[in-house]
Amino acid sequence: LTSKLPHVGTTIFTRMSQLAAETGALNLSQGFPDFDGPQALRDAVGRHIGAGHNQYAAMTGLPALREQVAAKIARSYGRSVSADTEVTITPGATQAIFCAIQALIHPGDEVIVFDPSYDSYEPSVELAGGRCVHVPLALADFSIDWQRLQDALSPRTRLIILNSPHNPSGALISRAELDRLAALIRERDIYLVSDEVYEHLVFDGVQHASVLAHEELYQRAFVVSSFGKTYHVTGWKTGYVVAPPALSAELRKVHQYVSFCGVTPLQWALADFMTEHPEHVEELPAFYQSKRDLFCDLLASSRFRFTRTAGTYFQLVDYSAIRPDLNDVAMAEWLTREHGVAAIPVSVFYQQPPAELRLVRFCFAKREDTLRQAADKLSSV
Amino acid sequence: LTSKLPHVGTTIFTRMSQLAAETGALNLSQGFPDFDGPQALRDAVGRHIGAGHNQYAAMTGLPALREQVAAKIARSYGRSVSADTEVTITPGATQAIFCAIQALIHPGDEVIVFDPSYDSYEPSVELAGGRCVHVPLALADFSIDWQRLQDALSPRTRLIILNSPHNPSGALISRAELDRLAALIRERDIYLVSDEVYEHLVFDGVQHASVLAHEELYQRAFVVSSFGKTYHVTGWKTGYVVAPPALSAELRKVHQYVSFCGVTPLQWALADFMTEHPEHVEELPAFYQSKRDLFCDLLASSRFRFTRTAGTYFQLVDYSAIRPDLNDVAMAEWLTREHGVAAIPVSVFYQQPPAELRLVRFCFAKREDTLRQAADKLSSV
Ligand SMILES: CSCCC(=O)C(=O)O
Ligand SMILES: CSCCC(=O)C(=O)O
Repeated sequence: LTSKLPHVGTTIFTRMSQLAAETGALNLSQGFPDFDGPQALRDAVGRHIGAGHNQYAAMTGLPALREQVAAKIARSYGRSVSADTEVTITPGATQAIFCAIQALIHPGDEVIVFDPSYDSYEPSVELAGGRCVHVPLALADFSIDWQRLQDALSPRTRLIILNSPHNPSGALISRAELDRLAALIRERDIYLVSDEVYEHLVFDGVQHASVLAHEELYQRAFVVSSFGKTYHVTGWKTGYVVAPPALSAELRKVHQYVSFCGVTPLQWALADFMTEHPEHVEELPAFYQSKRDLFCDLLASSRFRFTRTAGTYFQLVDYSAIRPDLNDVAMAEWLTREHGVAAIPVSVFYQQPPAELRLVRFCFAKREDTLRQAADKLSSV
Repeated sequence: LTSKLPHVGTTIFTRMSQLAAETGALNLSQGFPDFDGPQALRDAVGRHIGAGHNQYAAMTGLPALREQVAAKIARSYGRSVSADTEVTITPGATQAIFCAIQALIHPGDEVIVFDPSYDSYEPSVELAGGRCVHVPLALADFSIDWQRLQDALSPRTRLIILNSPHNPSGALISRAELDRLAALIRERDIYLVSDEVYEHLVFDGVQHASVLAHEELYQRAFVVSSFGKTYHVTGWKTGYVVAPPALSAELRKVHQYVSFCGVTPLQWALADFMTEHPEHVEELPAFYQSKRDLFCDLLASSRFRFTRTAGTYFQLVDYSAIRPDLNDVAMAEWLTREHGVAAIPVSVFYQQPPAELRLVRFCFAKREDTLRQAADKLSSV
């Protein structure tokens, strides 16, 4: 069997979570909360399973949930989208991204991927027969290097994958950067996949610059988000894509053969909860900001160096004052085995990691006692 | 945007279920039960959601569920498979098939698809850059036409997609046919995807000839099944693939970027239920056979002609004694609109439907009263 993905191994998330389990380390590697989704949301699932909502959902998603997504978008970004023709529910945001790429990319097409970036983008592009062109973000602040981006564009460029808030760095794209991007691609036949799964995890009073709020860019965009991240239920694997009708139509053609539809009772429960608790997303920034601040305050006296993350539930830390001799993969393993805290090395998000990279990523979507224990261990490193 | 799937519209299942809803017809079109999964199974979901099983599952699937699948396979087919290296849980069987095809098919590869066949196979092959070669089954009994199959093989043939019990006809592959297939591909570099989602819906005391029970074929096969079909919860979108370790490894590479993992609390609930109720699958043939027989007995006095289906929850009927003037798409619409029973036309499962085709498909996964009402309406057609 000739492999379709010869360069691919098991994802770092699986490997580090396994190592954490094996060694009994606190798992601050793979991004997921160690607390639960809201009680009302969880209760709603049992109610709908009891009420017989256990057969196929509509292919595009439960209408009530699509309506709630449209309502949230109107509240958050002032855009009115059609629940009917612009919102599609998918089995997870990873799959939303996969399907958008499949719908867009023909063999030979080029896709701009910023480095570092989430590990599913490149294999998804490869499976569609496309080729990723990697554009490194500035190492200082993970902002777009416009010269490098412009140089990377070619007549074959078909898609740019954006991700803000950015995994693993938490960096945010600004409205001004979106404008600049719009100007750059205005005369070109280039689409966007905008991975905004951490859209509601933006701190310090900053407003998330969503592609949904950018009229010109939205017209050529697939905007992806995740109920799992927003409602603390990553294991429910339910996400969505918002795109203009013509793009949504192509996405749905792919989606209907990749999975046909998402899970019915979870969609009902999410629709109920979103109807009853629109305040949940408003409260999310403060909720996660206080976790970030607790973790960062406790780490302040450690030998790790960092700037507080602007978004996501990830905190990058520089360990060059501690073990400059170790590369980040070795460092993540060492922290897990020797100090009982699992982390994600940042180099795995790069095609060509910078030699000087000395960063690991911690997930702070954890209970206060977990964060305290972790900080305690990390302070003695 | 140049469509990746230019010939594809909305699936027949979505269209007929919508028409049924609009017209208030009994929906015997899209295949799903109008009754619920077992109480104990449904209760288990609430329990696990309450117990905090709401974050990412292992990429390959919950270990306990993979163990239960392996145990079921041992009981049903006498094969011992490794839960660790041969069983992968996916968000639905459709996705399992999609991922297996993506893992196998390189651009230019040819895939044998029997006609009629499930509508996702061809677009999945196209998205992988492959080309389907359609081999019609015998119209009389939907058995393999060996001469046509042999003629369709070429040096580019990479994959044959089997489906037994067969949707839409219910036809079964026999052990002797599997042997013949094994002989035919023995010296060739050809793999199998065996879609066995109706594996436990086989009637009249016949034993399902699973590829899992065929040593030689299994070595080059991805065998796909569906918890949704077996446990009456199609909306849970949870399925699995069983394949030898080397094939599973390639499948998992694709799966980890298409969706990463399946839904956690549903996997826990299925594992519990399978542990506590191994008899469920034993009882399934009789359960569905009595539905088939009720429906067929009631239709015996109608002007529809049919042979009782050997497997699946679908019954094909010939309407040429009623409206020979209508093609099957028109007939399905006419039955829905004028007689209040929605059906699936069979021609949509063909690349080139035979001109003489006068068949529609009814799903009998319905409560007794639904089947009685439907038969009542159909008897007056
Ligand atoms: C699907 S596992 C990866 C979770 C995640 O988004 C991350 O840890 O970056
Ligand atoms: C995923 S909708 C189709 C259900 C089904 O398998 C059928 O009706 O044939």
